[in-house]
Amino acid sequence: MSEGSNRNAKVEVCFTPGSYPVYKTDNSIVVIIDILRATSAICAAFEYGAAKMIPVATVEEAMEYKKKGFLVGAERNGMQLDGFDFGNSPLSYMTDKIKGQTIVLTTTNGTQAIEVSKDAYKVVIGSFLNMGALCNWLIGQNKNVLLLGSGWKDRFNLEDAMFAGAVVNEISKHKDFEDLGDSALAAKYLFQTGFKNPYRFLANSSHKERLAKLGLKDDVKYCLQVDKTNVIPVLENGVLVKMD
Amino acid sequence: MSEGSNRNAKVEVCFTPGSYPVYKTDNSIVVIIDILRATSAICAAFEYGAAKMIPVATVEEAMEYKKKGFLVGAERNGMQLDGFDFGNSPLSYMTDKIKGQTIVLTTTNGTQAIEVSKDAYKVVIGSFLNMGALCNWLIGQNKNVLLLGSGWKDRFNLEDAMFAGAVVNEISKHKDFEDLGDSALAAKYLFQTGFKNPYRFLANSSHKERLAKLGLKDDVKYCLQVDKTNVIPVLENGVLVKMD
Repeated sequence: MSEGSNRNAKVEVCFTPGSYPVYKTDNSIVVIIDILRATSAICAAFEYGAAKMIPVATVEEAMEYKKKGFLVGAERNGMQLDGFDFGNSPLSYMTDKIKGQTIVLTTTNGTQAIEVSKDAYKVVIGSFLNMGALCNWLIGQNKNVLLLGSGWKDRFNLEDAMFAGAVVNEISKHKDFEDLGDSALAAKYLFQTGFKNPYRFLANSSHKERLAKLGLKDDVKYCLQVDKTNVIPVLENGVLVKMD
Repeated sequence: MSEGSNRNAKVEVCFTPGSYPVYKTDNSIVVIIDILRATSAICAAFEYGAAKMIPVATVEEAMEYKKKGFLVGAERNGMQLDGFDFGNSPLSYMTDKIKGQTIVLTTTNGTQAIEVSKDAYKVVIGSFLNMGALCNWLIGQNKNVLLLGSGWKDRFNLEDAMFAGAVVNEISKHKDFEDLGDSALAAKYLFQTGFKNPYRFLANSSHKERLAKLGLKDDVKYCLQVDKTNVIPVLENGVLVKMD
């Protein structure tokens, strides 16, 4: 019997990195969520053969790695920064040149969420792309779960909340995950309302509009697909690797 | 023509006082929300004849006022504190002894939300009890609106989000209030999902359970009633008064 089985694990949702201090506990699995697009891009990169990914908070750190010869993705405000190999688009990682490579990544929001939670019991990466594998794994752990949305510059973000709700909806079907905090309840309701037609649900969302203006509709479409990979990226000593 | 008319005002929802710094603007009307129970109690107190209310953040400040002879309400963790005249129950303010009086109030969450936003362009008090009057007034102002939930110790709170969504739902029917942030969209969806049966919607919410354990079901029932008063409490130099 694994530690903590036969108990009711708590499921919480924290909508922004800035609120993480009030939700953090010593023994929660933290799921990092940045649907549009960092955590979708991370899942895609591992699915397409990346060996490791190093999330960094600042462009300066990313530049240092670039000088050392690493492949580096760097995005701010939706756009790839000049002088780097990738931005935040999952589609840009679908290339042979990432196979077996270590890729460094800094983004406006997603890597900030990893930064604030890096000392948690365990940190994993979630997106619609790996949702089924992630939920099955979470159910098997029977640990408290904290779904951490990346938001947009510490503001609430609709697509991250919807994905958090999708996970809550799925894992709370199991009797060990019935203890939902208010934000988990809200996220579940949002998912149940919105996911029948996510494009329409997100039609007026700030970030979808931001990406549409940047000509990134294909990215949005890709990021809302479910179960395109079984990869669960997990943070180990500050580096994301594929969970065995 | 009033300043700012014929423009699309922005409607935002900030779910917790801790997130206020990322949502604050110089020219928004801030609506303080603590449905269970501070803002419901404030509306009830004015409806039952209170002249002024002084919100204070700490028990120590409240005690100083008590020593000076003021009527003082003080609540922490759902319970009235010993040595004070009222707690946070709207029902407790339905008494002749408040008529014409200035009442000092400190609560776990609601008065904290007032404290963080006190320098805003305008701060008003919202609850289901004064919802119709509040929405009509907001529509007439044609200013940006920031609905500020009190949450529970800086965590997201379901009933505050639902009320924020009720206001968004109402004022966004008007063409001047169509620019909704993501959290306003989410709150609106939550209201639309939940308010047909708010008791069931809140059945598993943390705060409703907390109050039920304290024997305060009648408070919950009262606080979910719509349009029991036309009073709009407004903050003027740190003191809440009835808007003319």
